Amino acid sequence: MSLIVMKFGGSSVGDAERMKRVARRIVERKQAGHSCVVVVSAMGDTTDELIDLSKQIYDGAPPAREMDMLLTTGEQVSVALLSMAIHSLGEKAVSYTGWQSGIFTEELHGKARITDIQPHRVLNAIEQGNVVIVAGFQGMTESGEITTLGRGGSDTTAVALAAAIKADLCEIYTDVDGVYSTDPRIVKVARKLNEISYDEMLELANLGAAVLHPRAVEYAKNYNVTLVVRSSFTNNEGTNVKEEAVMEQGIVVRGIAYDKNVARISILGVPEKPGQLAKVFTSLADVQIDVDIIVQSGVTNGSADFSFTTTLEDKAKALDVLEQLRGEVGFREVTSEVNLVKVSIVGAGMVSTPGVAATMFKVISDLGITISMVSTSEIKVSCVIDGTHLQDVIRALHTAYGLDTTSQVFVGGPQDRR
Amino acid sequence: MSLIVMKFGGSSVGDAERMKRVARRIVERKQAGHSCVVVVSAMGDTTDELIDLSKQIYDGAPPAREMDMLLTTGEQVSVALLSMAIHSLGEKAVSYTGWQSGIFTEELHGKARITDIQPHRVLNAIEQGNVVIVAGFQGMTESGEITTLGRGGSDTTAVALAAAIKADLCEIYTDVDGVYSTDPRIVKVARKLNEISYDEMLELANLGAAVLHPRAVEYAKNYNVTLVVRSSFTNNEGTNVKEEAVMEQGIVVRGIAYDKNVARISILGVPEKPGQLAKVFTSLADVQIDVDIIVQSGVTNGSADFSFTTTLEDKAKALDVLEQLRGEVGFREVTSEVNLVKVSIVGAGMVSTPGVAATMFKVISDLGITISMVSTSEIKVSCVIDGTHLQDVIRALHTAYGLDTTSQVFVGGPQDRR
Repeated sequence: MSLIVMKFGGSSVGDAERMKRVARRIVERKQAGHSCVVVVSAMGDTTDELIDLSKQIYDGAPPAREMDMLLTTGEQVSVALLSMAIHSLGEKAVSYTGWQSGIFTEELHGKARITDIQPHRVLNAIEQGNVVIVAGFQGMTESGEITTLGRGGSDTTAVALAAAIKADLCEIYTDVDGVYSTDPRIVKVARKLNEISYDEMLELANLGAAVLHPRAVEYAKNYNVTLVVRSSFTNNEGTNVKEEAVMEQGIVVRGIAYDKNVARISILGVPEKPGQLAKVFTSLADVQIDVDIIVQSGVTNGSADFSFTTTLEDKAKALDVLEQLRGEVGFREVTSEVNLVKVSIVGAGMVSTPGVAATMFKVISDLGITISMVSTSEIKVSCVIDGTHLQDVIRALHTAYGLDTTSQVFVGGPQDRR
Repeated sequence: MSLIVMKFGGSSVGDAERMKRVARRIVERKQAGHSCVVVVSAMGDTTDELIDLSKQIYDGAPPAREMDMLLTTGEQVSVALLSMAIHSLGEKAVSYTGWQSGIFTEELHGKARITDIQPHRVLNAIEQGNVVIVAGFQGMTESGEITTLGRGGSDTTAVALAAAIKADLCEIYTDVDGVYSTDPRIVKVARKLNEISYDEMLELANLGAAVLHPRAVEYAKNYNVTLVVRSSFTNNEGTNVKEEAVMEQGIVVRGIAYDKNVARISILGVPEKPGQLAKVFTSLADVQIDVDIIVQSGVTNGSADFSFTTTLEDKAKALDVLEQLRGEVGFREVTSEVNLVKVSIVGAGMVSTPGVAATMFKVISDLGITISMVSTSEIKVSCVIDGTHLQDVIRALHTAYGLDTTSQVFVGGPQDRR
């Protein structure tokens, strides 16, 4: 008898048949004696269709407040239909919008953060034996405005709600079996991880693993919510995401992520004066350009070269900004490069294991590939390389870090078994 | 400088182009110096599409609460898009759902009545110079449940809101120029009425004139809201609906309505015992069958014949109920008839003008047509006749009551010019 939050994404409820299948899955859980709160996204392409509608009406970016008003209908349709599907299986269910579920957010449209959850309605409905279906991705401000949580919003709703109602478990249902050591489409022997720590998951999510949104992982870490990522199509055990994951023998790298959405911009011949670099990156930040890795390649004759990465979408805007700064900063030349990829290894064991990064550099250079940029944190190393080598590099790293093993050997370790 | 409520139905906002046209219309009003609150329905076929979706999920009638949750998204989409369309014309606008507008209803799903309106958000937004766009057809219960107002709900929202904010005028935009003396598709010389009283409008609406919902008219009458029915396609003056309409010389009949959705059921040879009739009609009411006209045709040899009308949809259910009562009530036979039509004349002047009903009967019998049933109130007379004669009868009545005149002559009369 436990209290479970189950989250289903848009593709899991993409049409009536899928909706019914999800309903059966929920009813199984309920009939096994669990109390279920279900968070659901908009059906399949609904959000895109609503965005298309808005484009027919408004040239450019529509007012964010009205966009939230529009888009939140998508999840409202989902919760109503999923509740009906559960009713048709003979179980009691009740659907709630974000505001009905007591999900409060900051006064910001399009990507509001949750500030508070007052879950009394959800809890009352659970006590009365209902399956409670909550619209993901949405909330309400103190002043009664409807807001959306932005990308990954439904994951965040699920985790935040799990924290607020003190759920025993938050299950994120997806179209894969769980979190993999790397992309199974690239490495056939990639394996599903049984456990992963919040920090590792956070790095993987930030580095391009789409299975869970970083904000949701961060929330789960902050509120110690036990997460499970599992398939909505199979009954296989998923991947547990928790405070401290069990370490496997000799495995310091938990997973390998990659990100193809990388553009590199180099600024050559920047006069060595204080504040020049700050000027450049402040100007980029002012127009919301997300800068990832920054590398300075050394000073020659009183001028330096810098490189940074950004997304492919932001490349043109970044080049514009730099062009406008040319006179003020006085650099010689700006170049840009695409067709790159950022490959990252992630593992909490790295911090105590010397030579992990060195192994990565050696594996890549043994393949005759040049590393353009490097970035590290305590639990990850990222290298930017030419995109054509992506598959070779990932396969070689997967093998080098012992991730190809198909049988898993566990050793003891600090565990958090709430 | 006045405060106007403008209501647009689903066909007026059926697609992006129509939405933009409605937006221009609103902005014209606004720029002419009026404060505008706009009530809007779901776009075109949206509601039907949502109902179809629910049918794919739920066999039979889905839980009414979840149906309300589903259907209210239709208007929410409309208000968001209409607000965007107004923004794109450079005016400030803000959209609100029913609950955000402070529209409270009884605790009933599918056809809740409005119990209270707390319009402070609407009024604040108006004060700040916004056009306020309110989702029609929906409200919220005291306990925070989302409800719908049932058929004609958006008309009711508009009128109730107009009353609550003390609007100077409530404009109902539709696809015709106003209220007509009868259906212009049948009588070419049918004319648009400049004015009509609440009571007359109420009868006409109840008798099948689809232009305004009876509930909205009743609300307007109770709260003395000046209504105008006008076209969303032209700038023609519409029809004013108000307490006491100006009387035209010699015109006692204001309009002629008809209803094809009529089935007649006759119960023959009912033993003349007290309470038999009550038993029949109580049983019909118990299963929500709407009975309209009831006629008893006299007693012969201690048994009587009764006839009543109901809708075509309810006919089979009514016959079932009667079959089950046969033993208990002991009647001889039940017969039913379709292909009927109810033709009604409406006019507040009738009450003080003798012979109005007699003229109707004479016109119909002069055409060689039998009247099956008659029903009267102070301001209307209805006759049920064979449906094949509908057009002839309406044309003849339209002429007989002097409605064919194309120039209108007004005489003085009590007026309500708030």
